[in-house]
Amino acid sequence: VSGALEIQSLAGMPEVGQGDDIASLIAAAAREPVREGDVVVVSQKIVSKAEGRIRDLASVRPGAEALETAARTGKDPRLVELVLGEAASVVRAEPGVIIVRTHSGLVCANAGIDTSNVPGAESVTLLPEDPDASARRIRAGLRTASGQAPAVVVADSFGRPWRLGQTDVAIGCAGLVSLDDWRGRADRGGRELAATAIAIADEAAAAADLARDKTSGLPVVVISGLERFVTRGDGPGAAVLRRPESEDLFG
Amino acid sequence: VSGALEIQSLAGMPEVGQGDDIASLIAAAAREPVREGDVVVVSQKIVSKAEGRIRDLASVRPGAEALETAARTGKDPRLVELVLGEAASVVRAEPGVIIVRTHSGLVCANAGIDTSNVPGAESVTLLPEDPDASARRIRAGLRTASGQAPAVVVADSFGRPWRLGQTDVAIGCAGLVSLDDWRGRADRGGRELAATAIAIADEAAAAADLARDKTSGLPVVVISGLERFVTRGDGPGAAVLRRPESEDLFG
Repeated sequence: VSGALEIQSLAGMPEVGQGDDIASLIAAAAREPVREGDVVVVSQKIVSKAEGRIRDLASVRPGAEALETAARTGKDPRLVELVLGEAASVVRAEPGVIIVRTHSGLVCANAGIDTSNVPGAESVTLLPEDPDASARRIRAGLRTASGQAPAVVVADSFGRPWRLGQTDVAIGCAGLVSLDDWRGRADRGGRELAATAIAIADEAAAAADLARDKTSGLPVVVISGLERFVTRGDGPGAAVLRRPESEDLFG
Repeated sequence: VSGALEIQSLAGMPEVGQGDDIASLIAAAAREPVREGDVVVVSQKIVSKAEGRIRDLASVRPGAEALETAARTGKDPRLVELVLGEAASVVRAEPGVIIVRTHSGLVCANAGIDTSNVPGAESVTLLPEDPDASARRIRAGLRTASGQAPAVVVADSFGRPWRLGQTDVAIGCAGLVSLDDWRGRADRGGRELAATAIAIADEAAAAADLARDKTSGLPVVVISGLERFVTRGDGPGAAVLRRPESEDLFG
């Protein structure tokens, strides 16, 4: 059932700018074509850049709500204005912390807006508007470029309640069984595996993060050995990993 | 800085029972000795079994608090009795859900008590009492058995607020930089990487989980390629990944 996994970052990716075709850049950088059963994990940062999801804080004018929330949290009112623009609802706003649920359903600090590794003194990246669609586009592009359609994951680093440190999670994916649902299946002793559904896409994002570091500029990582989770169709993406607000007993 | 990772489950581990020496079993099962810079990820289940952390629900008599909480949550009062015994505090108790902070500081559903893959119709496993100590013991045993001291992670599957599905996290570790703290360091453009600390041990646990499946009985996984995070000393373990209750702004 399970064999070895190999995880390798892709050297030679250039800086990505607005309008760049990430699939073509990956195909050009890969020494050998990425294979059908591979999982290509792409960092959110370059997807956002390619999609033009960059803002310059210098050109943002905070409104009344942003000014109020900025005062309460101690954050830059211009950043808060952008965060609120991305937010369907504010989960938490306290000194030093703003956690929101984004329009695409992700719960994360600062709406996932990031200031590091963006050119320009006050430039920031927003998350892709629809990260599952981003993953599907990259997958389609890889299919066009190479004839192969590996699974694609768009990954970003999220903090977690109760645990320190961030881990990479899948904010988007295509062609991957993102949630491997064992509920109803039996364990080796025949007892039901009561509540086990494994977030494969999140584990793949986390695994890929181990093959780069935060300053290395290695935004693309290829995982081999997960063929059993790679699907012909794009599937429902990482959307299935977002716990519906109504069910959020765990939070 | 970063190269390829290889992740391989260890075939040939026998069933583990109380009193078994996990390090010796790993050393015997490994076709070639586990190396100094490797990370050996061991599932909580076999650690708990070896440490005798097994209980038979048939012999548990629920007290008044357990009966009350069981009525409120719809859970087996005997299981709830065990959960409360493991709990320093109850974070949440609602229909279908009990989340506690354990005596060792882990926040998880049902205090991490698990009913699957345990011999005996009503047997369950509790988490190891001190999972970092468990990891240190296994590491010391591997050093004795093979002369090599890889890092050791004890992993368990946890649910997450806001996201569906479980991922494996490190409940214990030894000899690994469990939290890689980039705060204060600069990005490639010279801007500070404001809030980035990466939970390496959790990402390693998640990566290892991809190399097994829940019924395969592959409780040990070896990761090569993380030498840069493996330390001579055992270090502070996974304890540093537990967010102090007072700081839990994210929850």
